Amino acid sequence: MNNKCSQQNNKCSQQYKFDVPEIIFGRGSLSQVGSCAKRLGGKKVFLVSDEGLLNAGWVDYVMRSLTEAGLSFVFYGQVTSNPKDYEIEDGFKEYVRHRADVIVGVGGGSAMDAAKGIAILGSNGGRIQDFCGNNMINRPLPPLVLCPTTCGTGSDVSQFVIVNDSAEKCKFTIMSRCVAPDISLTDPDTLKTLPEEYLGSSAIDALSHAVEAYFSVASSTLTDVNALEALRLLEKSLRPAVKEHRRDDMENLCRASLHAGMAFSNALLGVGHALAHPIGGLYDANHGHVNAILLPEVLRFNFPVAGNKLAVLARTLGYENFGAKKFSEEIAFEAVGKLIEAGGGPTGLKALGVCKEDFAVLAERALRDVCLLTSPRQTDSDDLQDILSKVY
Amino acid sequence: MNNKCSQQNNKCSQQYKFDVPEIIFGRGSLSQVGSCAKRLGGKKVFLVSDEGLLNAGWVDYVMRSLTEAGLSFVFYGQVTSNPKDYEIEDGFKEYVRHRADVIVGVGGGSAMDAAKGIAILGSNGGRIQDFCGNNMINRPLPPLVLCPTTCGTGSDVSQFVIVNDSAEKCKFTIMSRCVAPDISLTDPDTLKTLPEEYLGSSAIDALSHAVEAYFSVASSTLTDVNALEALRLLEKSLRPAVKEHRRDDMENLCRASLHAGMAFSNALLGVGHALAHPIGGLYDANHGHVNAILLPEVLRFNFPVAGNKLAVLARTLGYENFGAKKFSEEIAFEAVGKLIEAGGGPTGLKALGVCKEDFAVLAERALRDVCLLTSPRQTDSDDLQDILSKVY
Repeated sequence: MNNKCSQQNNKCSQQYKFDVPEIIFGRGSLSQVGSCAKRLGGKKVFLVSDEGLLNAGWVDYVMRSLTEAGLSFVFYGQVTSNPKDYEIEDGFKEYVRHRADVIVGVGGGSAMDAAKGIAILGSNGGRIQDFCGNNMINRPLPPLVLCPTTCGTGSDVSQFVIVNDSAEKCKFTIMSRCVAPDISLTDPDTLKTLPEEYLGSSAIDALSHAVEAYFSVASSTLTDVNALEALRLLEKSLRPAVKEHRRDDMENLCRASLHAGMAFSNALLGVGHALAHPIGGLYDANHGHVNAILLPEVLRFNFPVAGNKLAVLARTLGYENFGAKKFSEEIAFEAVGKLIEAGGGPTGLKALGVCKEDFAVLAERALRDVCLLTSPRQTDSDDLQDILSKVY
Repeated sequence: MNNKCSQQNNKCSQQYKFDVPEIIFGRGSLSQVGSCAKRLGGKKVFLVSDEGLLNAGWVDYVMRSLTEAGLSFVFYGQVTSNPKDYEIEDGFKEYVRHRADVIVGVGGGSAMDAAKGIAILGSNGGRIQDFCGNNMINRPLPPLVLCPTTCGTGSDVSQFVIVNDSAEKCKFTIMSRCVAPDISLTDPDTLKTLPEEYLGSSAIDALSHAVEAYFSVASSTLTDVNALEALRLLEKSLRPAVKEHRRDDMENLCRASLHAGMAFSNALLGVGHALAHPIGGLYDANHGHVNAILLPEVLRFNFPVAGNKLAVLARTLGYENFGAKKFSEEIAFEAVGKLIEAGGGPTGLKALGVCKEDFAVLAERALRDVCLLTSPRQTDSDDLQDILSKVY
């Protein structure tokens, strides 16, 4: 990343990459999982999901689709939130034992990241920690279909995997174009059974992806159109979706998640996610809640380098007709804050069990996170601890 | 396609697909063609381009990149505008004779469509006419890298190939997800050597892609964000690019082409392109010029089913603050017309050598074109001949 570019607000010429999987989107599309796995050449599917999805009936629904496509399958459901290294390693052993040849992940970010982790080990072997960092994967993954059932993670389109190192209690990031799946399949009907607490928090995760990707130094029109569409959809549908659960609004949250995922997978993220990962790892905290708490102060931290993008952000979030720079900052801050409020959730890190004594170690871990590579503003441990203090 | 959906202005639930190649974009990126071909597993490259690009030095530039990546190559430059079936078949014979294993197309729509056609025959054999229509390709294509050097075709990201049947003097359309390349690589610097006459006309081709994709019954937020971004960029940069050739404006035209390509490859097109193909085939006419002539009347034809998208179109093209439906229609028509005027080119079909006596056969051929599948308004031969008469 060229930091001079970021200082000049992206005025100099850059080369951009944009890579997204094949995307299928629509109510009822989960019934196509079988045909998707089949056309990727699969015969035996390794189906990764979690207990919640099993109880809600979606795992059965997917199994029927696999059976109808003439595929056999093995179910692996031992995935918890903030997926742990040992869950991925156990899954990998099952994958090998059953000689499966295609992987389907159905669930939130945890189930999908676990599916990605199992796929990494499936073709590369080793320990999942071996692949931490940027471009550490040498062999292409087995065919992979990912089906999100929340509305925020973006893992179904992204080049990221987030895993919790259980010994270190620290999330680490794997970034590689190899880990984007072959097919991302979103069926908005799955939101009907999403527990209330996850609806708002996952939508706020999408919000934080869209905002951080929009201000990233690696953003381009290719990612900006998607980041802004995510913001527009969240502004339109987050409040009514949380309050009234109307089907069109729920569907819009799924669209927002998809657009935000396409944006951040290619523009990457920034300080917010660099901090959210160690916090999530150390306290096993809800990722959407951590982002909701951090995002306003991360946005403020970026004010000095945000340029006229702040005004576009505010306008996209429904605030028209303003001009002065100072005013843009206030309005953007207010608009993002109101959306976060609509998403619900705790309002300070203290409520998540974060201890002030851990600030230094959290900042130190954030400085090693790949998300910092694309932060629009250079940062250090003091800056990061200052942000943590402000949102405590 | 569900026509009821189109009548109801897309209010009912649909399933959408969105599939685009890996995209690389930026000045100087053409020097990466070698490394792209290499990571697709290529050893011997079949390089398809045309005389104009050879004379402008870009073919040499690409050859250097291939050599630097340690790849050998064969050059095939026998491609003319509106690429002919026999040019593709000759190219295929050379491809087989030299045992090449990856195909690189560098040029406008003609060179890239020829490269796609050679790739289709490369893995499927037969005659190129055998693949006419929707989803007629059974075997995946050899690795394919496409590098546009004009700013309109979108062939570098699209699931379309347009070939001229030389005996019938009729363009036919091949549509398949297989024909989208592995990598789309745009280097805006190549526009520096594009002859004046092609700059405006290829930008208007992008305009027609964006407009037709936006009103297609298969459009979704996934395609709309790209169609609208293309329109925004064309509104901003078409006039100054044609007048002053500023580098940033030229780059924006390339971006517009890319966004419009992502939109129409997935939302498909409509009446305009269904008519443009037989006209281009029968008179070997410049595709951008044909589109420029047809587009305003095609837009008018769609007024009854365009709904509030007309107002969004007009706003995106720089017209603010209006409300009434009638007014939206006038404004959208005017805005598109002004952009077309800025692109230059002839103003009626007569100037392209079209004969009125051919209207019936042109309409009959258009009715068989796959582009009609996604027209927002049902049409018949009388409608099509009426449009042709109005723009004669």
